[in-house]
Amino acid sequence: MSRAHNFSAGPAALPLETLQEAQQEFLDFAGSGSSVIELSHRGAEYVEVDRQARERLTRILGLGDDFEVLFLQGGASHQFMMVPFNFLGTSQTADYINTGTWSKKAIKEAKLFGRVNVAYSSEELNFSRVPADSELTLTEGAEYVHFTSNNTIFGTQFRKEPETAGVPLVCDASSDFLSRPLDVNRYGIIYAGAQKNAGPAGLTIVIIRKDFLQKGKKDGIPTILNYNTHLGTMFNTPPVFGVYMFNKVLAWIEKNGGLAQMESRNAHKAQLLYNEIDADDFYSGTTEPASRSHMNVTFRLKDEELNKAFLQEAEKRNLKGLKGHRSVGGFRASIYNACETESVEALVAFMKEFRR
Amino acid sequence: MSRAHNFSAGPAALPLETLQEAQQEFLDFAGSGSSVIELSHRGAEYVEVDRQARERLTRILGLGDDFEVLFLQGGASHQFMMVPFNFLGTSQTADYINTGTWSKKAIKEAKLFGRVNVAYSSEELNFSRVPADSELTLTEGAEYVHFTSNNTIFGTQFRKEPETAGVPLVCDASSDFLSRPLDVNRYGIIYAGAQKNAGPAGLTIVIIRKDFLQKGKKDGIPTILNYNTHLGTMFNTPPVFGVYMFNKVLAWIEKNGGLAQMESRNAHKAQLLYNEIDADDFYSGTTEPASRSHMNVTFRLKDEELNKAFLQEAEKRNLKGLKGHRSVGGFRASIYNACETESVEALVAFMKEFRR
Repeated sequence: MSRAHNFSAGPAALPLETLQEAQQEFLDFAGSGSSVIELSHRGAEYVEVDRQARERLTRILGLGDDFEVLFLQGGASHQFMMVPFNFLGTSQTADYINTGTWSKKAIKEAKLFGRVNVAYSSEELNFSRVPADSELTLTEGAEYVHFTSNNTIFGTQFRKEPETAGVPLVCDASSDFLSRPLDVNRYGIIYAGAQKNAGPAGLTIVIIRKDFLQKGKKDGIPTILNYNTHLGTMFNTPPVFGVYMFNKVLAWIEKNGGLAQMESRNAHKAQLLYNEIDADDFYSGTTEPASRSHMNVTFRLKDEELNKAFLQEAEKRNLKGLKGHRSVGGFRASIYNACETESVEALVAFMKEFRR
Repeated sequence: MSRAHNFSAGPAALPLETLQEAQQEFLDFAGSGSSVIELSHRGAEYVEVDRQARERLTRILGLGDDFEVLFLQGGASHQFMMVPFNFLGTSQTADYINTGTWSKKAIKEAKLFGRVNVAYSSEELNFSRVPADSELTLTEGAEYVHFTSNNTIFGTQFRKEPETAGVPLVCDASSDFLSRPLDVNRYGIIYAGAQKNAGPAGLTIVIIRKDFLQKGKKDGIPTILNYNTHLGTMFNTPPVFGVYMFNKVLAWIEKNGGLAQMESRNAHKAQLLYNEIDADDFYSGTTEPASRSHMNVTFRLKDEELNKAFLQEAEKRNLKGLKGHRSVGGFRASIYNACETESVEALVAFMKEFRR
């Protein structure tokens, strides 16, 4: 088997050793004589997996005792609705920063529940940038400020949390979760679909600050959509395989130096690509340099007639998943934690060769 | 490796050959050089998995063109809320048949949205039976009649669909889905968490009749909770691994004679156990004989002092997952499609031995 250089935007490459481990024990987990996906979620084997994953995540992000960790389902799209269902009453206001497709979707759902102030939008610039703090128009007394930390489609990323004068942040961190350290105390909620940096699709990780949770609505929320339902218990059957793989990915992150090391490795990989894009005008980036993502590197060919040839030649070199999203065009190299530097080097070498 | 006789109520045993296939191709799916969980859900490889699963399910259940098949997340507990969110207005009434913990939870959520008539309840009998048609008090003009076809916890099962004078059935079929043929035209919605007969936890299969869907509410529903959002498209990233395993399980069902064959094999397995339970008064069933489940066989020891010894001795014989739910006590053998007759025979042999 020749492992692909996988630049898929998500579901995306996972650390090879986590896959190898899962494969090896797939028919017999922890001496149970069953696959991990055949075991009761209330049984000792799975309860230990769940415990380990929570403990590791708490340690890696430095969450301390101030946060609850929930393993839910439905992806970030589900959180778009669940956040305002719990935290935005009809007469309350939340600030939303609109930096892409996912932000827009979050805004649409929030409007069903309460007042939404769009604190900034780069929509007219086809979402080619994220704002500086000075560009935000925040509401005094807002319930929260929602932002999308990394925009998978448009290839932009906040370099640090927006300044909100003490208003808690609610963050869709799906596509850069666990790629770098966070100032966790700034957040009311961090949510992320697992399928970029954290594991397979089907698991949604939700981290809620306990004092923020206190401010949630008390009734009128369907049971499964109320965050309180999920505190300290498995309310219903969790996405067992997702949590199981997530736990392995967390172990891999710890073994490889934690989030500080992830951040510097990701910055290095991104720099290799942006250097090549900026080398001359054969390639060009699609975003403002200050807003460039370290997770999704988007670029175009000057001569777009060559697009098809670029993808075909890349495919021949086992470089996969490079086609850009239709709303941006061109190419996108997603270089999440598990994307090896060697894969990025192979892509850069091909880009040089293709230019020639 | 010695494979356990796995009687877990869910997540539960899956067909060994589906697990072996998944293991074998876990690092390289369909020649992609990536694991199936690393591939884009919009890519050719996964789109083909999704297509196969829909096609197989349609063929196996005989759905024809009248139904939509959705692959969602959140389990049956999520459908408890999603069904009335879409189909029960504040001035509308739905009939609910209360035959256990899961029915009760469904009723609780429906009451948030509209009027609920409990058409029958066996709660005072600790849910030891399901009703005959003559025992149902149905509402004329009800939007739907909701029932739980098999009660995992209490070990009861409807032998056939309740008669509803043309009102569409909405069924939580989680724990007997694909265990027998259904009269599909009786249903408005069939929903099921995959983790019993269909695959790993994290996938929810929802089958909706197109003309029933037309009657759904048009607005006020968060996007991801509106069934229409999911028609003919992957609205967001699906639980890829769940659908992938589900597709393998469907292939296994077809190879093994389809639902008619599943039904007769399940009936045979159940009969082996009930015969042993009824042999004398050492063991006793917990439900009325006419309501006995072919999926979850619940029983007690006359001398409950022996409970612990029973479980310990069973464990020594590699018979696992037999502890009854706390609300019933005693024991429960879950014998879904993938539970081999040989496992049931091993359990019966042990029960005979333990009696001696």
